[in-house]
Amino acid sequence: MRCCIISIGDELVRGLTINTSAPMISSALLEQGYSVNKVIAVGDEKRAIKQEIKQAMQTHDLLILTGGLGPTSDDLTRQVLSELFNRPLKHSKQVAQDLEKRYGPQLSTLEDQSIILEGTKIYLNPVGTAPGFSFQEKESMVMALPGPPSQMQTIFLQMLKDIVKKFPAQGVIEKRYLFGLSEEQIDPFIREWEPQVEGLSIGVCPSYGVVSVYFWQEMEARSESFSKVLCAFDKLYAKQIYSTFSPDLEKAVIELLKEKKKKLTLAESCSGGLGLTRLTDVAGASDVILGGWVSYSNIAKQQWLGVDSKLLQSLGAVSIEVAEAMAQGALERLPVDYAISITGIAGPSGGSLNKPVGTVCVALAMREEGKVFSTQFLSKGSGLRSLVKTYSVNFVLSAFFAYLKWGQEPFSKGRET
Amino acid sequence: MRCCIISIGDELVRGLTINTSAPMISSALLEQGYSVNKVIAVGDEKRAIKQEIKQAMQTHDLLILTGGLGPTSDDLTRQVLSELFNRPLKHSKQVAQDLEKRYGPQLSTLEDQSIILEGTKIYLNPVGTAPGFSFQEKESMVMALPGPPSQMQTIFLQMLKDIVKKFPAQGVIEKRYLFGLSEEQIDPFIREWEPQVEGLSIGVCPSYGVVSVYFWQEMEARSESFSKVLCAFDKLYAKQIYSTFSPDLEKAVIELLKEKKKKLTLAESCSGGLGLTRLTDVAGASDVILGGWVSYSNIAKQQWLGVDSKLLQSLGAVSIEVAEAMAQGALERLPVDYAISITGIAGPSGGSLNKPVGTVCVALAMREEGKVFSTQFLSKGSGLRSLVKTYSVNFVLSAFFAYLKWGQEPFSKGRET
Repeated sequence: MRCCIISIGDELVRGLTINTSAPMISSALLEQGYSVNKVIAVGDEKRAIKQEIKQAMQTHDLLILTGGLGPTSDDLTRQVLSELFNRPLKHSKQVAQDLEKRYGPQLSTLEDQSIILEGTKIYLNPVGTAPGFSFQEKESMVMALPGPPSQMQTIFLQMLKDIVKKFPAQGVIEKRYLFGLSEEQIDPFIREWEPQVEGLSIGVCPSYGVVSVYFWQEMEARSESFSKVLCAFDKLYAKQIYSTFSPDLEKAVIELLKEKKKKLTLAESCSGGLGLTRLTDVAGASDVILGGWVSYSNIAKQQWLGVDSKLLQSLGAVSIEVAEAMAQGALERLPVDYAISITGIAGPSGGSLNKPVGTVCVALAMREEGKVFSTQFLSKGSGLRSLVKTYSVNFVLSAFFAYLKWGQEPFSKGRET
Repeated sequence: MRCCIISIGDELVRGLTINTSAPMISSALLEQGYSVNKVIAVGDEKRAIKQEIKQAMQTHDLLILTGGLGPTSDDLTRQVLSELFNRPLKHSKQVAQDLEKRYGPQLSTLEDQSIILEGTKIYLNPVGTAPGFSFQEKESMVMALPGPPSQMQTIFLQMLKDIVKKFPAQGVIEKRYLFGLSEEQIDPFIREWEPQVEGLSIGVCPSYGVVSVYFWQEMEARSESFSKVLCAFDKLYAKQIYSTFSPDLEKAVIELLKEKKKKLTLAESCSGGLGLTRLTDVAGASDVILGGWVSYSNIAKQQWLGVDSKLLQSLGAVSIEVAEAMAQGALERLPVDYAISITGIAGPSGGSLNKPVGTVCVALAMREEGKVFSTQFLSKGSGLRSLVKTYSVNFVLSAFFAYLKWGQEPFSKGRET
């Protein structure tokens, strides 16, 4: 099955919005064994949309369109499809009733949003006003979804069931998420294994200090060799794989904390709360995260965490000693097992010859073990604040995960407290 | 000038990575008066890449390719272009010298990464190993960039200068960023003005409680009417526009705080540090943000912010009273002018009949004014934790901005303290 996603919207081609819907659809399809071949974004222009749909239909069995279904004047998808395939637009009682039930009869766009192409299967929108719909046109299946990601996602999960019924899976997918490695370090593995196993493709995708690797094998070529490859990979990178299903390092950390019945707090300076917000993005995080500090200023470090002012003056806020004092201070102030601290120079200014932008100090204090580990490193991504933040958080969470999971010493420098 | 961006990589079509490079390029082009017509993502497959390039060349003057320039086995862009246009691959002394200077002669990919298409203009990569390059092929300009966003961005800024020299601008762009409005509420303005002014297009793009509006006028149609439209818009939405250049609400808040010489702190519960990390993403935030608390548990709310345990027991952590106590507690514990608190139920579980998932209470305490404002609302995006967090932070930062900028009462409920 060849699948093409066409995302419609001026805001997408003009770069005012990032296309998050297409990757959501692609990855949901991938989990089911389908590989999307092409993703197109095109503006709100009738002629251009028509041309893309026509062209895509020639070489694809499944077309998934997102966007352009709303009630505003630049929403053209329904009209384009109607004209292109000579299917009249028609009032749908089913949609009107659903909208009225959820928004009341006063909804100004009720009539407009109830107009759907004749002879299509309708997928009601439980979280918005534009329903999705699908129809078969010659050799191709066409599915249309609204643009807003939360609406799109909800409706697509309904459509996915119909896709699975209609098209046989093309392959199997397995994923591995790793830290402490670069894309280049995994390349020799790929060069060794890809030619050996029929229909196998291995993809590597680095992301700010962590790496995603996926293994795909064509359905027809399915063989035991696939598991042999995975075994070899898992053995080689045993102490670097933090998940087999999610790239979110924070998810792996939260799950491990839950499993070990341990609690963690963070005292963040340069990372400004990024670690805490990522950890609390995970459902159920409140079981193991009681809270934390964004001790962005020296005054906060002193007053909240008890960092010695002399230390701050003599060594500066970005120093291993201050990182250790922050972590220990945090541990003393909350009934948790572990405290992580991050202090650094996120830039773009504030660097010096000794401590250039990107210099980051982290520490991990442990209550039961009575130890504190710390290190200083130069973060990648210097020049962009948010990148330094992301690298720093990934670095320290990786080390913490490895400690908790495998008992690996987290950083170069550790001492008793 | 018709421009097409072709992003190359299995990880893009398969949804393992979000394509952030294309919108970066598009928006940089838009600022210079160019509108991208089409964005394509295609996998690491020679035949498919070739076909897309060939097809795009027929109707576009400028092709920008990203990805596939790295040293790993699935990087095919150079080879594809070489075969497609009969341009031999050749060792570039310039690139080799640059790589050796930055990485040393031991760089394992030095030789590989120095191979470039003959007769192209080379753009050195100051932050990675794969250089960009460009060449004219018949009617079209082809530019190739590496995939990693930070490398792509750095090199594209050099290329942009050459694009500006070569192609006349197509239009002018103006942007407005607003809060407190939906896409539908702006639509009547578009329906009124778009038909009146030649070559005008107005785009609206909602994003979790804020809305981006852009005004584009074709260069040939340039007229005074364009400024008339902007004037009308600015007048109509005077108290909702927070920026004319950046969608980042936190940027507008930080700049306003700097201008007013005021300091702010946040005590976050359900938002888990998202507000603080967004605010500290803004360069220079440390002038006005001294830090904040992620008081995720009751114990943290009590111990750090002095929230009365009886209050927590009787009304629950998600209540207007607790939000007020958090904000006032925060104000007492740091030498700042304002303290914002956010407490709510981010879900997916933890809701009740009285307080469903998405219920959020916020408060704003002011030192000099001796007032505290607070409100309770049902956040959009319930069902997805990170959406509730985003809506909550946008809601409270919008209200704070409106107060600081125009003296607007921030929420429904305010009282003296």
